[in-house]
Amino acid sequence: MCVSCSFGEKLRVTVFGQSHSAAIGVVIEGLPAGEAVDMERVQAMMARRAPGGSDVATPRKEADVPRVLSGLVDGMTCGAPLCAVIENTNTRSGDYAGLANTPRPGHADYPAGVKYGGHNDLAGGGHFSGRLTAPLCFAGAVCLQILERRGVNVAARAQRIAGIQDAYCDPAETDLSAWGAGGIPTLDPKAAERMKQAIMEAKARGDSVGGVIECKAVGLPVGLGAHMFGGVENRLSAALFGIPAVKGVEFGAGFAAADLCGSQNNDAYLSADGEVKTATNHHGGVLGGMTTGMPLVVRVAVKPTPSIAMPQQTLNLATGRVGELVIGGRHDPCIVPRAVPVVEAVTACVLLDLLLIGR
Amino acid sequence: MCVSCSFGEKLRVTVFGQSHSAAIGVVIEGLPAGEAVDMERVQAMMARRAPGGSDVATPRKEADVPRVLSGLVDGMTCGAPLCAVIENTNTRSGDYAGLANTPRPGHADYPAGVKYGGHNDLAGGGHFSGRLTAPLCFAGAVCLQILERRGVNVAARAQRIAGIQDAYCDPAETDLSAWGAGGIPTLDPKAAERMKQAIMEAKARGDSVGGVIECKAVGLPVGLGAHMFGGVENRLSAALFGIPAVKGVEFGAGFAAADLCGSQNNDAYLSADGEVKTATNHHGGVLGGMTTGMPLVVRVAVKPTPSIAMPQQTLNLATGRVGELVIGGRHDPCIVPRAVPVVEAVTACVLLDLLLIGR
Amino acid sequence: MCVSCSFGEKLRVTVFGQSHSAAIGVVIEGLPAGEAVDMERVQAMMARRAPGGSDVATPRKEADVPRVLSGLVDGMTCGAPLCAVIENTNTRSGDYAGLANTPRPGHADYPAGVKYGGHNDLAGGGHFSGRLTAPLCFAGAVCLQILERRGVNVAARAQRIAGIQDAYCDPAETDLSAWGAGGIPTLDPKAAERMKQAIMEAKARGDSVGGVIECKAVGLPVGLGAHMFGGVENRLSAALFGIPAVKGVEFGAGFAAADLCGSQNNDAYLSADGEVKTATNHHGGVLGGMTTGMPLVVRVAVKPTPSIAMPQQTLNLATGRVGELVIGGRHDPCIVPRAVPVVEAVTACVLLDLLLIGR
Amino acid sequence: MCVSCSFGEKLRVTVFGQSHSAAIGVVIEGLPAGEAVDMERVQAMMARRAPGGSDVATPRKEADVPRVLSGLVDGMTCGAPLCAVIENTNTRSGDYAGLANTPRPGHADYPAGVKYGGHNDLAGGGHFSGRLTAPLCFAGAVCLQILERRGVNVAARAQRIAGIQDAYCDPAETDLSAWGAGGIPTLDPKAAERMKQAIMEAKARGDSVGGVIECKAVGLPVGLGAHMFGGVENRLSAALFGIPAVKGVEFGAGFAAADLCGSQNNDAYLSADGEVKTATNHHGGVLGGMTTGMPLVVRVAVKPTPSIAMPQQTLNLATGRVGELVIGGRHDPCIVPRAVPVVEAVTACVLLDLLLIGR
Repeated sequence: MCVSCSFGEKLRVTVFGQSHSAAIGVVIEGLPAGEAVDMERVQAMMARRAPGGSDVATPRKEADVPRVLSGLVDGMTCGAPLCAVIENTNTRSGDYAGLANTPRPGHADYPAGVKYGGHNDLAGGGHFSGRLTAPLCFAGAVCLQILERRGVNVAARAQRIAGIQDAYCDPAETDLSAWGAGGIPTLDPKAAERMKQAIMEAKARGDSVGGVIECKAVGLPVGLGAHMFGGVENRLSAALFGIPAVKGVEFGAGFAAADLCGSQNNDAYLSADGEVKTATNHHGGVLGGMTTGMPLVVRVAVKPTPSIAMPQQTLNLATGRVGELVIGGRHDPCIVPRAVPVVEAVTACVLLDLLLIGR
Repeated sequence: MCVSCSFGEKLRVTVFGQSHSAAIGVVIEGLPAGEAVDMERVQAMMARRAPGGSDVATPRKEADVPRVLSGLVDGMTCGAPLCAVIENTNTRSGDYAGLANTPRPGHADYPAGVKYGGHNDLAGGGHFSGRLTAPLCFAGAVCLQILERRGVNVAARAQRIAGIQDAYCDPAETDLSAWGAGGIPTLDPKAAERMKQAIMEAKARGDSVGGVIECKAVGLPVGLGAHMFGGVENRLSAALFGIPAVKGVEFGAGFAAADLCGSQNNDAYLSADGEVKTATNHHGGVLGGMTTGMPLVVRVAVKPTPSIAMPQQTLNLATGRVGELVIGGRHDPCIVPRAVPVVEAVTACVLLDLLLIGR
Repeated sequence: MCVSCSFGEKLRVTVFGQSHSAAIGVVIEGLPAGEAVDMERVQAMMARRAPGGSDVATPRKEADVPRVLSGLVDGMTCGAPLCAVIENTNTRSGDYAGLANTPRPGHADYPAGVKYGGHNDLAGGGHFSGRLTAPLCFAGAVCLQILERRGVNVAARAQRIAGIQDAYCDPAETDLSAWGAGGIPTLDPKAAERMKQAIMEAKARGDSVGGVIECKAVGLPVGLGAHMFGGVENRLSAALFGIPAVKGVEFGAGFAAADLCGSQNNDAYLSADGEVKTATNHHGGVLGGMTTGMPLVVRVAVKPTPSIAMPQQTLNLATGRVGELVIGGRHDPCIVPRAVPVVEAVTACVLLDLLLIGR
Repeated sequence: MCVSCSFGEKLRVTVFGQSHSAAIGVVIEGLPAGEAVDMERVQAMMARRAPGGSDVATPRKEADVPRVLSGLVDGMTCGAPLCAVIENTNTRSGDYAGLANTPRPGHADYPAGVKYGGHNDLAGGGHFSGRLTAPLCFAGAVCLQILERRGVNVAARAQRIAGIQDAYCDPAETDLSAWGAGGIPTLDPKAAERMKQAIMEAKARGDSVGGVIECKAVGLPVGLGAHMFGGVENRLSAALFGIPAVKGVEFGAGFAAADLCGSQNNDAYLSADGEVKTATNHHGGVLGGMTTGMPLVVRVAVKPTPSIAMPQQTLNLATGRVGELVIGGRHDPCIVPRAVPVVEAVTACVLLDLLLIGR
């Protein structure tokens, strides 16, 4: 009973659908008119998120072919809201029967049941499902193209999975060419290999693992955002916490900054080629809620997939007795690789919004 | 040119003022009518944030006596917006002259100058100053009293300063009686002593330190918040990033959850005294964006105060030359102790909003 | 480049689509969970708005069968946003070619062309088309059912068309049984007959006529809404002006109140059956932005359809020459009858929102 | 318990205070930085609204000298929210005692009492008082100066009082030099004289009269606003209904358009000096929710002051008995003259917001 499917001010993204409803989709309001949308690139972005792409993900196959209902004329935005829908075809609602009384640990089942008086859609997690991130990827893929034409590039990577770190990347570095590629998008292919192994091991024992995703944006003009509650961090964190399983958001040095001294954490200004830059980038491209022109660096913590094959303890709400729960169905042993493009997408939407709001 | 002084939906808090303007203040819209406001408790909360209270803080003295202009009739809310102002008396604007062209590292000076075309108020950081958190404390102190009458308690502590940890506190624990007290509010007084020492050492060498603040709320009903973008985490993080120097926000196990397995991180349900509880509280009281009835646990990373006495390198925007900058004035070597009540206050405002929105 | 397809706070209605896009539709967020939706009644409401229903309307036939993509489980709301789409089948885009340079008087063509840099969808008026009111009717039909279960009834009528008045109806009267029926929904069938004749005459000479729609809601609790900018009138007028061709909105005695004395316009309080009522209802059920328990009475002025068959003068933006414009296609000589259910629908959506917001 | 003291998107105006609270005031967020504010002109605008200025208004004297607390540096906006407060000095709270149980007809007393459970501030109408329009005038006076520098002028007049019409003014006319002057601001001084007489007659018999205010804005660029719910009419009407006593809002021909034919109401395009204009201006400068470049024409219906000296019938809510009510205090026999600058002010705020939002 709460309006929470939308984010954005001048560019507003509204997501709808349930895991097993007829379709899911997105309405994007506020796109500038006259922008070409390359649907192949949109499809490619969505494919990065789609399940079935690799052995570290759920074997479920989803076609995930978006159909644009409005907002484009001859492949170009026309100022009207862009709506795209994705039909839900491959559903197995039988897997989820009987969950109403035995809430799955780590899932929204219990509070959702209370909130909606038992009327919420249980199949596949209903509107709490990670499937809702598919339309987010659509929206992000559209925004990324518009950002690019304005000189802004956004990319994300799996910085850590199961405690295994990807290669260090200087937060001040602006080259994103190596970002975002591969089944597990890391900068170091060997790290991806070790991560994959850790994921497969977790899967083998019916468990799951989490990780940290880092997202970077370069080319942003100085002075976007604002002080206090309408700043870059406020808007980005509010949107990023909308991605299921995200439990933390940090900018620049983030939580590590808490252990630094001011003399270490402050980024000294210097002039490079006439542009104002800082020698280091502990601030992650944001000061006082505003972009500084340095790369924006944001990191999100992704918890391990709550759906695990191992038996878990839960409460039967009808009987009041605690018992064992075994979750059926096919699930990702690690959601991080598929969440990388989602983080990229959500960040792109927020940044385009900030760019349209302007200084 | 961006509306960002407000947060909240049904309860909206709007902060105004600059560090050295005639006054600063807050407008609180949406308070339920008929709620008594104990101004002594409000004053006590504000005193916890006020400078000059201890030797770990800036020696500036601010009276910070709020004057209520509207919204109360005989000490009780009347449904009209509550406005309170705090006069600015102890100002030393001379300290800040000449900063326009030499932006202080770690401060908002540079992006603000670009954003506002040089028209922003430089004195004391203008509206980017930490002084704006005083009206936030006022708002929080009012909300805390209303929350208490509804069975909700909120408290915060310095969980870490300069790398020194406070005592461990079980996230599932609901007793808050030991929280929030002392010049450096910790659970373990010895930790506070060691933190104080680290702060004084940093001060002695003209440096500063940061830390992590943990905030806990108990007594929240199940099912507040919502999925995706209007949930507890979205609203809280968006508000908390409005506190100057906050660079990260995490819930429950937060970033640590990224390194756990699902079987470790999932919180098993159990029934205690007829209530639904979880054995552990890695989820920090929020699942699917909704409260679960377990204690809400949120942590924010506070960077070290950017104003340090040590000389720093900056760029002279007028000459294009890099040079040494020495920041005058009196500054907190560690903002964390004074930020603890601010985090508590902002959290209280957001939680009362969620409570008023309801399920 | 402006977010304006949505209205509502706790219940948010977002409309998308263009006259000739693949489909049009609506996303309704914030519907309470557990509400049955009778799709036959929804369809009946939409049929009242659909073209082709009578000889006073455009002969275009639109199937207008909505397909629900999400938000319902077994015909019941589940707390997830309800999305419904209507495919666009009967389109004649050829009619609108070449309008880019010769804006139609009374239409949005000229300012839209400037706003969107010529990239707006011209076919059928694009997203400025009256066709977008079909999804509004869908949303309203859903809200009406939920309102009814809470004791609130909403109905509208053509109070005036082409200067011909419908029968007088006491604004204090709560019986709505005679409202809303007929091809031209009036209380007096003879008035409808005369209106129809006037419409046919206008059509015969290639012209069009306008009118006034009155909408009434009974059963509202006292104290919904708020003072100043969030009141019943603010929200309703903002939404009602979203219906194409609406040029005025008034409540209760409205503009006529301007010519009354206070002693005439004030509604004396009296007690009827224990309920607080007023003897008259010049205030139209709203005082200080809040519902009073008396019937809500709102009236909207609908301008004559700007698309007329008579030749009109316009400017060729390319050549700078003024010339004659003949608008092809089939158009309603009077939009009022079809707009009656739209006004009812929009009013229902706003009232359900106010009810969900509560006191 | 409802956030409704604010309006605006990029420029947000928040009003606070009660008739007899310590002070009233306004927070204006989103003003562009670097704009000079001439406080004498602000004061002059507020004086037009202030009581005691003429014998057609209440003899209460209010100093209404605003004190700026924040947002200006050396008389220039600095990007921080501008807060101004006006102390309440001349209050007679005794007049209003005992109103809790005998609601005044035409006032908000009854629904406010229900909404706020009897906790609302009764003195002087609390936060429903017309006194809250003083800070609105402050905000408008600031916005008017910024608009002027961008070539936009706004003015209002009493178009009708007690049924007496001011001179006709062509809606297409752009000269505003004769607008806004005089104790009763009309174009024809004789009309003002007759209006004054009618007001004095009403006053003499203890009654009151209403009227219609017309507001015009010239110099607006083409394409501001948007289709459907975020357009010029939606935003303006939502704000204008926030002025106490407004019962109707219309644009261009407004309700009169309902009785016109399309061939009469449509405004033919023509080219004048290279600019696109229409021969007539029935559309009032707005088509499809967007500005057309023609003068914006908006009219509001103001009901007669509900506070009249004549005895009225009301209900004693405590006893359930109907009885006679005599309202003490000093009241305006006609609020229209003082409301003229308020309409101008609110319109200016909304138009500056639209200008800042841009196309």
